[in-house]
Amino acid sequence: MATRISPLSGFPELLPAARTVEREVIASLSRSFELHGFANIETRVVEPLDRLAKGGEIDKEIYVLRRLQADGPADDAGPDKQLGMHFDLTVPFARYVLEHAGHLEFPFRRFQIQPAWRGERPQEGRYRQFTQADVDIVGRDELPFHHDVEVMRVMVEALAALPLPPLSFQFNNRKLIQGFYRGLGISDVTEAIRVIDKLDKLPAQEVAAQLVERVGATPEQAQRCLELATIRVADLSFVDRVRALGVTDELLDEGLAELAAVVEGCSSGAHGSVTVEANLRIARGLDYYTGTVVEIFMAGYERLKSVGGGGRYDALASDGRTTYPGVGVSFGVSRTLLPLIADGVLAGSRPVPSAVLVALTDEDARPASAAVAAALRARGIPCEVAPSPQKFGRQIRFAERRGIPYVWFPPAAEGEGHQVKDIRSGEQVAADPDAWSPPTEDLRPTIITQGLEARSARPSTTERHPQ
Amino acid sequence: MATRISPLSGFPELLPAARTVEREVIASLSRSFELHGFANIETRVVEPLDRLAKGGEIDKEIYVLRRLQADGPADDAGPDKQLGMHFDLTVPFARYVLEHAGHLEFPFRRFQIQPAWRGERPQEGRYRQFTQADVDIVGRDELPFHHDVEVMRVMVEALAALPLPPLSFQFNNRKLIQGFYRGLGISDVTEAIRVIDKLDKLPAQEVAAQLVERVGATPEQAQRCLELATIRVADLSFVDRVRALGVTDELLDEGLAELAAVVEGCSSGAHGSVTVEANLRIARGLDYYTGTVVEIFMAGYERLKSVGGGGRYDALASDGRTTYPGVGVSFGVSRTLLPLIADGVLAGSRPVPSAVLVALTDEDARPASAAVAAALRARGIPCEVAPSPQKFGRQIRFAERRGIPYVWFPPAAEGEGHQVKDIRSGEQVAADPDAWSPPTEDLRPTIITQGLEARSARPSTTERHPQ
Repeated sequence: MATRISPLSGFPELLPAARTVEREVIASLSRSFELHGFANIETRVVEPLDRLAKGGEIDKEIYVLRRLQADGPADDAGPDKQLGMHFDLTVPFARYVLEHAGHLEFPFRRFQIQPAWRGERPQEGRYRQFTQADVDIVGRDELPFHHDVEVMRVMVEALAALPLPPLSFQFNNRKLIQGFYRGLGISDVTEAIRVIDKLDKLPAQEVAAQLVERVGATPEQAQRCLELATIRVADLSFVDRVRALGVTDELLDEGLAELAAVVEGCSSGAHGSVTVEANLRIARGLDYYTGTVVEIFMAGYERLKSVGGGGRYDALASDGRTTYPGVGVSFGVSRTLLPLIADGVLAGSRPVPSAVLVALTDEDARPASAAVAAALRARGIPCEVAPSPQKFGRQIRFAERRGIPYVWFPPAAEGEGHQVKDIRSGEQVAADPDAWSPPTEDLRPTIITQGLEARSARPSTTERHPQ
Repeated sequence: MATRISPLSGFPELLPAARTVEREVIASLSRSFELHGFANIETRVVEPLDRLAKGGEIDKEIYVLRRLQADGPADDAGPDKQLGMHFDLTVPFARYVLEHAGHLEFPFRRFQIQPAWRGERPQEGRYRQFTQADVDIVGRDELPFHHDVEVMRVMVEALAALPLPPLSFQFNNRKLIQGFYRGLGISDVTEAIRVIDKLDKLPAQEVAAQLVERVGATPEQAQRCLELATIRVADLSFVDRVRALGVTDELLDEGLAELAAVVEGCSSGAHGSVTVEANLRIARGLDYYTGTVVEIFMAGYERLKSVGGGGRYDALASDGRTTYPGVGVSFGVSRTLLPLIADGVLAGSRPVPSAVLVALTDEDARPASAAVAAALRARGIPCEVAPSPQKFGRQIRFAERRGIPYVWFPPAAEGEGHQVKDIRSGEQVAADPDAWSPPTEDLRPTIITQGLEARSARPSTTERHPQ
């Protein structure tokens, strides 16, 4: 093996304790999704290149695979040459649905937690390999709207169960925007959305000027567009505020009703650190959204931009004969956790699963210590036997360095009994390997949080409504 | 999206029910490893190419990454160009140990369950993307031998907990082979091992002839080598049989003692479908093994060759100053499960996690059905609400097609109560959403096995001792 090792930028790796945080989060997300009947799938990490590269901005970030020593031109022209690594979980899922449609029951409810790859410039929250958690519901030919409410609420509940800083689900609806613009008399809705999207970077009046210039809006129309985009509330009052702008349109009505249903349905599932809002500026750049859209932001980490997002797509996939509409939402596991771990907000309680270190009196006593360990394991208690019969003080320090809370002492002589020591308190008691258990909170490594309570106690108006 | 979809050879994907099998197996392996104090890690999927490509046979199977649209020569020469996808979990683990050594406690016990990639010709049990489960213990400078017994026994226990056809752990020891050959007077031990390895393909006398020709052995020496290689027993009698061959050597003694300890230590942990043997022909081609070696075979699936293997390496990794000895064993999750799933030996009990479908009387009653679902979920029961208020007969068939065992009927009118139907038996009973639970075996999808009992009841001599 070579001697010098330096980290690869954009390919973060976790030490064992931090990996505990990621595993517990993934396990909790999986539990939440499964409680709602979502089936887990994994897709292969590669797709034919023509399915990935669509001529968009992302194309140049796609990693393409080739074999190190291809067997010549014939092999080069083979399928290997055309494979790229997926850059999200939506493209492979759409392909999975098409490929396996004959074996799936629709509406098909799935979750998928896997890495994706993008050759972009690494920075905080942006990695070249990163893990995402996606939930989607896909129908064949049709998918009733109530699934929008359902899938968004599932993600609300799943994230509310995690120990995270305050999260804000900010919903909008493409029909609402489109209907409003149409009712207002603006024809190039797509360009209008693109201009409004600049409100984050440009002053409002600059944006208004561009609406006039580039979209052909009148100053009055531009003003209404700005007014719509600044509506942001945590209840259903947005409906009246939009109506007060005096625009009427059928699609607008439909969008308002859908957005109201999503906000209401999700609010009742929001608790803990999660809040739900209607934010009528949210558009999401991607063109395939056709109704509900959502972006998720994390308080104190606005610099990451959204930590999740998604929406409704009336044509997630199509084979020419059949169209598969879908609605779903994605949570950036790496994008969220890695900055929180780096900042010390989240940590694993220990780097090993062992709750108990079984001490070793001398090498000949290894079978006796192994028998204690076997008895503990038989009752589900993770443990390990000390690697060498050092002085007990050193064995205790061995446990300490690993965060193992208990050290077990088998009898050192005939007539003595077993003892177990909580090395944090120093308390040592007699114990039976076939009966003793640690308190539940010591059984497995857990996520330790720092500063989360303080954070969520801050006035939410400053943190969650930065406008 | 494009219209035609064909599977990618060598990149298998599982339908949801089959994915259940894989997930349950991975969860069970993880539980077993954690009970023994092994920490989970994941490594990034790419390594610098010079760490992967060592001039061996595997080099031409390595997948190399490049960005689809590299930003010109400067970018081309950058680190992206030098990245390859790992083809096993040992190379990345060795690099992880070196890179993070300052943050790890030794001996470091880890398990890792991840995919790996090889651009080889796809065939049964051989895929271009495949998942492996590895357990290893790594020391700094030294690693006492008892860890060999420990790590092998962990894998024995982990696999014995799985519903698999009979598995045979076949152990040998490199010191034993090397010491025997040395004591016999054969100088080119490596070449001798390579020739003996052909016993699977060539008649014994042919192999003996090659030992004479290529290794410079006398006919007598060649005969002894063959006699050693045919020793295969499920107990410690191999020690006397080797001694009876009349060769004496210190290293041989050490190897015999180590192999006896491994066989004895693992046999006491073997139960269910797992048996343990000493098979003195096992060498494992890879050069870095220095003591214990093991290959795992599955009865009825000898055509897959080994489904796992591993051993002791005195220099898993080295940075020039410090050497990290290790011992570990790898289990081929995809290699084992995909053929068993294809043969119908293993299947998932249902393709969805839901244990209950909550029926829907009419669309207005959706909140009432959702409330039942929420009550069930609050007590850990996975469920979903029917997507549309079809006739109950059709809702029951909807559940049936998904393998959901129970359908819940909320009260259709004032004064009525809740009812739940087991759609397999047809039995329908009154039930309280805050109290009713399905039997534990219906709560989650499980692994259904077919033919495993018959298989393990066959005489083991024919299946496990094919010689």
